[in-house]
Amino acid sequence: MASQKRQMRLGAFIMATGHHIAAWRHPDAQADAGLNIDHYRDLVQTAERGKFDLVFVADSPAGWERAKDPEALRRTAQGAHFEPVTLWAALSQVTSRIGFVATASTTYEDPYLLARKFASLDYISKGRAAWNVVTTGADVSKNFSIPGHPAHADRYARAEEFVDLVKGLWDSYEDDAFIRDKESGVYLDPDKVHQLDHKGQFFSVSGPLNVGRPVQGYPVIVQAGASEAGRELAARTAEMIFTANQTLEDAQEFYSDVKGRLARYGRSPDELLISPGIFPVLGGTEAEAKANYDYIQSLVHPSVAWNILSRHYKGVDLSAYSLDDPAPPLPDSTELNKSRLKLVTDLVSRNNMTLREFYLAVATARGHRTVVGTPEQVADAMQKWFDNGAADAFNIMPPILPTGLTDFVDQVVPILRKRGLFREEYEGATLRENLGLRRPPNGLALKAQQGEAARAAG
Amino acid sequence: MASQKRQMRLGAFIMATGHHIAAWRHPDAQADAGLNIDHYRDLVQTAERGKFDLVFVADSPAGWERAKDPEALRRTAQGAHFEPVTLWAALSQVTSRIGFVATASTTYEDPYLLARKFASLDYISKGRAAWNVVTTGADVSKNFSIPGHPAHADRYARAEEFVDLVKGLWDSYEDDAFIRDKESGVYLDPDKVHQLDHKGQFFSVSGPLNVGRPVQGYPVIVQAGASEAGRELAARTAEMIFTANQTLEDAQEFYSDVKGRLARYGRSPDELLISPGIFPVLGGTEAEAKANYDYIQSLVHPSVAWNILSRHYKGVDLSAYSLDDPAPPLPDSTELNKSRLKLVTDLVSRNNMTLREFYLAVATARGHRTVVGTPEQVADAMQKWFDNGAADAFNIMPPILPTGLTDFVDQVVPILRKRGLFREEYEGATLRENLGLRRPPNGLALKAQQGEAARAAG
Ligand SMILES: Cc1cc2nc3c(=O)[nH]c(=O)nc-3n(C[C@H](O)[C@H](O)[C@H](O)COP(=O)(O)O)c2cc1C
Ligand SMILES: Cc1cc2nc3c(=O)[nH]c(=O)nc-3n(C[C@H](O)[C@H](O)[C@H](O)COP(=O)(O)O)c2cc1C
Repeated sequence: MASQKRQMRLGAFIMATGHHIAAWRHPDAQADAGLNIDHYRDLVQTAERGKFDLVFVADSPAGWERAKDPEALRRTAQGAHFEPVTLWAALSQVTSRIGFVATASTTYEDPYLLARKFASLDYISKGRAAWNVVTTGADVSKNFSIPGHPAHADRYARAEEFVDLVKGLWDSYEDDAFIRDKESGVYLDPDKVHQLDHKGQFFSVSGPLNVGRPVQGYPVIVQAGASEAGRELAARTAEMIFTANQTLEDAQEFYSDVKGRLARYGRSPDELLISPGIFPVLGGTEAEAKANYDYIQSLVHPSVAWNILSRHYKGVDLSAYSLDDPAPPLPDSTELNKSRLKLVTDLVSRNNMTLREFYLAVATARGHRTVVGTPEQVADAMQKWFDNGAADAFNIMPPILPTGLTDFVDQVVPILRKRGLFREEYEGATLRENLGLRRPPNGLALKAQQGEAARAAG
Repeated sequence: MASQKRQMRLGAFIMATGHHIAAWRHPDAQADAGLNIDHYRDLVQTAERGKFDLVFVADSPAGWERAKDPEALRRTAQGAHFEPVTLWAALSQVTSRIGFVATASTTYEDPYLLARKFASLDYISKGRAAWNVVTTGADVSKNFSIPGHPAHADRYARAEEFVDLVKGLWDSYEDDAFIRDKESGVYLDPDKVHQLDHKGQFFSVSGPLNVGRPVQGYPVIVQAGASEAGRELAARTAEMIFTANQTLEDAQEFYSDVKGRLARYGRSPDELLISPGIFPVLGGTEAEAKANYDYIQSLVHPSVAWNILSRHYKGVDLSAYSLDDPAPPLPDSTELNKSRLKLVTDLVSRNNMTLREFYLAVATARGHRTVVGTPEQVADAMQKWFDNGAADAFNIMPPILPTGLTDFVDQVVPILRKRGLFREEYEGATLRENLGLRRPPNGLALKAQQGEAARAAG
């Protein structure tokens, strides 16, 4: 077989009406998208038609943020979304190859129930499940009968234990534990069932899980943290990392930093795929793309604009400013997480922005890379990062849905394909196979064998 | 329109390989059923072809019971099942009318996450979700980092608060809270979004939920408790109750007792449907049915039989007994729940059983009513209870799957239909509409209106 070029992976990062903050107002948008299952079905089938590796939804277990200005509150699209695991379970039945990344929080969910629902999703989808492990940056403790939001370090300490524990539960059954021989009446081999008996700082969970070992061994582990603790968690446990970078240099720094951490955990660099987000605004010509971009931006109502600004300028009095004044320096304290804040501060200082330019930059893709241009230009922008140590994959973040995804599939994917960068057909049946990730061995089985060997030797 | 006879409701209570303990060994059974999505898809489509109101799966958030006898352990079918909500979310996409009852525990789940996943399921299925509220009789605390299993009374106290809280979260948005007017840019009406701010004995949860009000207002509430506390919870909050009764008299007692409790909560008797289980063993003739029954029973391996007996005779030494000795009286202490224990004790004393007869009785349907006969005889048995104040609905518990369900749909349903007892076509689009249950009003909206009115008057 001819050796093949290194292949790019593609994910569709789906956000109800689209990633732009005013997407829902666009004539092409499905305004009730967040709870419209037919809309999501069409999107996922479009992504599968484009041979995308995966679809992804972000999540937080909380409702809305109550903007102080009632005008801004009325005008903010929020409050109504599917729960990710139920959504993907449903859509696995109307697709056959695409993978499903569901976000779930290690800070607010329970490990036994989480292990179970993802194992169940992996069986239901025949090996196409992935878990985006997040620690939940926003304080949503008021919905969970606990006194407050755990600190960043505690959230990550809990996440480290949580991920190991969940993997241990997924190892409860060896692949051949179930014999199911009708003739003899033997259903399973008890020696191939393992009780985890986990006792840690945060959890005591014995197992076994009441689901067999997932089709993929473990659902693919995705992570999206960017802090020191987040990078370490990813380096030790994740197989794909979602990231937000604006410039090639930042993306390269992130890429080589994270890849450089893997050896310490006995892992090789290709065991963790790095996937920055990209917000593509397409047009037949560059001018058309620019016009499309300006049109979306014009849909941001001024009250929503000021609300965005006041969230970034907590504690700063902006009443004397107009939108065309230069943006003052951002305060240190902000409700944004630290790594996202850095992206935003860099953006402002790099570009000498006015307040209008600033809110428009944030409104598009919340710090992710924005590319406005023709399909060729978007493909060029992707290839540049892919070829220069900044990306293994991309999270495509369509500004408006469904059209932003359809256009990408019909216009950009063929170009990537012509360049030999992206598949013509799915390589495998499971998400792991398509991503080129190996099926992990059963940790509890290995431990049991080692115990056995030690006893035999001793 | 001609007035119609009172209509019977039908549910398919689906247990992986079938309800008989040795079902998986039967040639017709799908031995790997518990994690075989295609098997479940076929079952649900068969039930929908039969115009069943609903499908139902039981659940407990734990793995297996480790039988002491290794022979029994190897021979017990357990350990590998789908999680109910993911399962039903998936199968809602390949059906259009049948309802989905998923079991979830108020003792071991979190109310915000539970409210969310059921609301999501209700949207995904377009109004066909139901929640079987259970308190979980078995001690599964070892999987949940808590010191022990809460006592019966505490479990029910928590369940009462849990159900109200979940309904409150489902009321977060009024039906017309989302305006989504692209032209004006107004997305929602903040006056129609309600924050629950629940503070109770067990939970503090503020809300709002991040899902709109479910299509059905609330998913249908099902309950399956039989104790005093269980009946009260059902009378106050449930719309369907699953029950296990052996005799017409017991079923009538249960039926009139539970219906009699409704008035106290300002509810009418038709707001709670009573659905006993029935385990139908069919045959072309009575003799054939009897032979089919004997054949299934012959599949119970002796080690499994003794394991069943030892679970019921905890602390009793049975080593001097043979299977053909009369069953000694059952001990008081048993791991079975109290109401199920009474069913079993009654069974033994009523029938003067041998140990063999006893385990065979338990092996079939765990205390549920067993009917062995022709399709006419099964239809007669159902009609008798339906016409005599013992049932509004039935939970059909096929001994072997898929054949037990297919046979019921093809052989018994047409007879019920000919008698005018069961629908030819679905009446509505949602589960509520098909069950003849009203869509509940929004409790938080009512409260807000009352507050408004009081302020206007005061
Ligand atoms: C593409 C992308 C998707 C993310 N999705 C989520 C999400 O769904 N839920 C969430 O709580 N955080 C999400 N995050 C935030 C990260 O989990 C993380 O909190 C953030 O990047 C800050 O990193 P740190 O917590 O390590 O400081 C996402 C981040 C990125 C880059
Ligand atoms: C048809 C039926 C289905 C049941 N399904 C479940 C179940 O899925 N999970 C569970 O924990 N209990 C289940 N139960 C048990 C009841 O929830 C309840 O615990 C039991 O009937 C004893 O009642 P009590 O708890 O009120 O004493 C079921 C009972 C019946 C009759």
